[in-house]
Amino acid sequence: MEFLHTEHVTTEHVSLEDIAARFMDSRVPEQMSSVDTYIDKFVKNVVVDSVHCNAPKMIGHMTMALPFFMRPLAKLVTAMHQNNVKTETGKTTTFMEREALAMLHRQLFQLGDPFYAEHSQSAAATLGLVCSGGTLANISAMWIARNALLRPTGDGSGKDAGNFGGVEKVGLVKAMKHYGFDDAKIIGTALLHYSMKKAADVLGLGTEGLLTVPFDNEYKVDLKLMEAEIVRCQAENIAIVSLVGVAGATETGSIDDLAGIAALAKKYKVHFHVDAAWGGPAIFSEIHSVKMMGIELADTVTLDGHKQLYTPMGVGLCFLRDPTNIRFVQKTANYIIRKESHDTGKFTMEGSRPASAVFLHANLKILGIEGYGALIDRSCRLVRIFADKIFASNTAELVVDPDTNIFLYRYVPRHLVEHQRAGTLDEANQVEIDALNVRLQTEQKARGETFVSRTTIWSPRYNRGIVALRVVIANPLTKESDIQLNVDAQLQIYSEFQEK
Amino acid sequence: MEFLHTEHVTTEHVSLEDIAARFMDSRVPEQMSSVDTYIDKFVKNVVVDSVHCNAPKMIGHMTMALPFFMRPLAKLVTAMHQNNVKTETGKTTTFMEREALAMLHRQLFQLGDPFYAEHSQSAAATLGLVCSGGTLANISAMWIARNALLRPTGDGSGKDAGNFGGVEKVGLVKAMKHYGFDDAKIIGTALLHYSMKKAADVLGLGTEGLLTVPFDNEYKVDLKLMEAEIVRCQAENIAIVSLVGVAGATETGSIDDLAGIAALAKKYKVHFHVDAAWGGPAIFSEIHSVKMMGIELADTVTLDGHKQLYTPMGVGLCFLRDPTNIRFVQKTANYIIRKESHDTGKFTMEGSRPASAVFLHANLKILGIEGYGALIDRSCRLVRIFADKIFASNTAELVVDPDTNIFLYRYVPRHLVEHQRAGTLDEANQVEIDALNVRLQTEQKARGETFVSRTTIWSPRYNRGIVALRVVIANPLTKESDIQLNVDAQLQIYSEFQEK
Repeated sequence: MEFLHTEHVTTEHVSLEDIAARFMDSRVPEQMSSVDTYIDKFVKNVVVDSVHCNAPKMIGHMTMALPFFMRPLAKLVTAMHQNNVKTETGKTTTFMEREALAMLHRQLFQLGDPFYAEHSQSAAATLGLVCSGGTLANISAMWIARNALLRPTGDGSGKDAGNFGGVEKVGLVKAMKHYGFDDAKIIGTALLHYSMKKAADVLGLGTEGLLTVPFDNEYKVDLKLMEAEIVRCQAENIAIVSLVGVAGATETGSIDDLAGIAALAKKYKVHFHVDAAWGGPAIFSEIHSVKMMGIELADTVTLDGHKQLYTPMGVGLCFLRDPTNIRFVQKTANYIIRKESHDTGKFTMEGSRPASAVFLHANLKILGIEGYGALIDRSCRLVRIFADKIFASNTAELVVDPDTNIFLYRYVPRHLVEHQRAGTLDEANQVEIDALNVRLQTEQKARGETFVSRTTIWSPRYNRGIVALRVVIANPLTKESDIQLNVDAQLQIYSEFQEK
Repeated sequence: MEFLHTEHVTTEHVSLEDIAARFMDSRVPEQMSSVDTYIDKFVKNVVVDSVHCNAPKMIGHMTMALPFFMRPLAKLVTAMHQNNVKTETGKTTTFMEREALAMLHRQLFQLGDPFYAEHSQSAAATLGLVCSGGTLANISAMWIARNALLRPTGDGSGKDAGNFGGVEKVGLVKAMKHYGFDDAKIIGTALLHYSMKKAADVLGLGTEGLLTVPFDNEYKVDLKLMEAEIVRCQAENIAIVSLVGVAGATETGSIDDLAGIAALAKKYKVHFHVDAAWGGPAIFSEIHSVKMMGIELADTVTLDGHKQLYTPMGVGLCFLRDPTNIRFVQKTANYIIRKESHDTGKFTMEGSRPASAVFLHANLKILGIEGYGALIDRSCRLVRIFADKIFASNTAELVVDPDTNIFLYRYVPRHLVEHQRAGTLDEANQVEIDALNVRLQTEQKARGETFVSRTTIWSPRYNRGIVALRVVIANPLTKESDIQLNVDAQLQIYSEFQEK
């Protein structure tokens, strides 16, 4: 696969419109045609101009080079064509998946041998769910939280108030009425991943069901304001579906005070979810795991295999500290996923799904704590080096100091550097700075050799949203020299812009 | 991959408990370890004892052998590691995915050149969604239907009744109140896939939000009873989220009268969804496409790539006849999936996801209408042959005559054959027949050479649920001789049981 071993992140000056023009044929061909012809065209039109997510100089996204053995394993998984919805089509891979879930559950919650002996392969409940991605993992966690809060009572038959069916059976309108709630909220900061918006909508809370409390200057939740909102909700008959802490926010990499949120959750008896899709694997690092303290108190946790657990796309993970809580969403059918079966389709929101847990299982067994820990430590060290180089240039302002391996900054035009340092930037200056950073990132992306991403982030310091460049390093192929080339490319474009 | 070329469906007498015992280690290893050792163990513990879904004599599930080029493509897709949530990580594969969606949309709805020129690559809307599976496709369809029904009005600002935010923003409780509904239902038959139970729960309708109307002796919806329920709901202020028709029910293969349901949907102005996850590809067959008449009138349609479109697992598809209806669920964020972008993450329930549409695109281009049509025709013919052989044995009763390529039947003990024909079976006889079929299928499965599946299905004839054996043929490797071997294996077990 030589065509993938490129030094560039993308092919130069190939626009999205150019590519769209290649795919405008909406007719299924009448006749069969040759595989060779198709593959030749595929390599030319799709592979060559794809985004080279393995490229060492691509340091702005959460996609990176994978261990080499993922490629042959992918071929094998496709050849086996197992469907993990049920053991009749996923006989070995079902149990392998559950072992992988047990390993990560133990790493997160450390509940001891008897607990894992009882639950890791039990047909009655599950330690977690393998989902297609982090979004479904978050939606699943909120689904469990909502259904547990508005749970059935008595025998759930619905025959009288003492035997109420719960939201799962009777729906949200009747369940809210039964429990006397006027409204329902999920509480976190504005740094919650946008999947929580999807969760709130899908689950019937509406996007206004996301109650966002401010974050502090370090982009972590303000616990006092969170507590004030909890108290207000409980006083006003507003159901709290979940408190959500972020461990490695997508935009900033910041990690909330998880132990602090856990204490609030315990005090007010509320579900506590941690979205650790990005930052979770820090639990493998001797240096960085301390930042995750409190995650072991969460009711549910999201991790992503395809981020810093280095699997291919399609491995979202939702963990349940108490495996029996799955009963609030469990479904069965006649022909498959019968109640007493080992079929995981009883538990997951999805039905038929691939045996993608194979990739996770392989990485856990082959890389181990040592390997994952080393990868995390290395990524964090490289981001620090990148940040130091940017500041040495005297042309940029820190936006988010890296908590782990995400770093946000912005270039400042030369004539505004003094104002920025003196804290005397006015609104017109801010607009100019934003425009510079948009132009700079667009130009770097178009040149295709290197890449960082870009976001608009709320700045507590300036009390406005600002454009920031965003560096994410988790690619084991990224070397210090690649970082230097990326910084050099940006400074070159910066200089060109200043001369015009 | 010689270890997969087996004549058996599973390895003989390896129980689920045997396999579970292999995966009881919940500790992540401390140290890194060898890839070779892992792969050796993987082949031994996982691959060899997996379910050989490619096996020609496995005719009881919806998994089957795939075109040979799927395996190298899978390796390539993993190597490219694209993330189709956004063009910055899925530059070519985003547009390729949209072309594949356009091809199938056109095959379903035939809306003409100008329509496809406008919509197939437009950033403003989408012809469909690639989901991880059919369950998410169904949930997505019901999500769109719910949000379209309880839609925003005016500018959606929520400032007054004329500018209502819609269920997406304000949630189900307030939206139902705003529109004056007391309850909400999805209407179909009890043959709806169990994913509709999940959809009803997740979306806040509750599983009681599924209103099932009876099916007739051919396992198709009774249209008169469906209309009566629509009229009743509308009279009682019950919102109808969707009418759902099934095109190839998972249990029976039966196809509802889609044109009939479409007429009701039009008459009563209700959303019409077709779950064609199994049967949809019949649209490629000159012989069988007539059974799908009316699907072109659906508002949303579910297809599954990994069923009769012959892709690997993980390709669910939800189509929208009107692509602009995606606006009712669309979400954006600051750092990605901006409103004006080509990022498909705006539209899908999922976020990060693999470029699995590559498999679908390849099959559509390589197999074409000719190839898919031939596969469908062949499968239907083989099922007919299987059914004929079973009846020739004079030991079985028809449960569902094959509409396409699913067939249900049950063995009858010799001493009850006369009673069955005379229609004089009593409850004790039914219990005995059920027990025979459970035992027979369990024994066949344990022997591992051949396989059919088993279900409990409501019988309108007997007015009770009965155990039935279920044959599904869609494997291009299955030959007439494999069918004979499967029938022979069953008759052998049947004889052994009769002699005891």
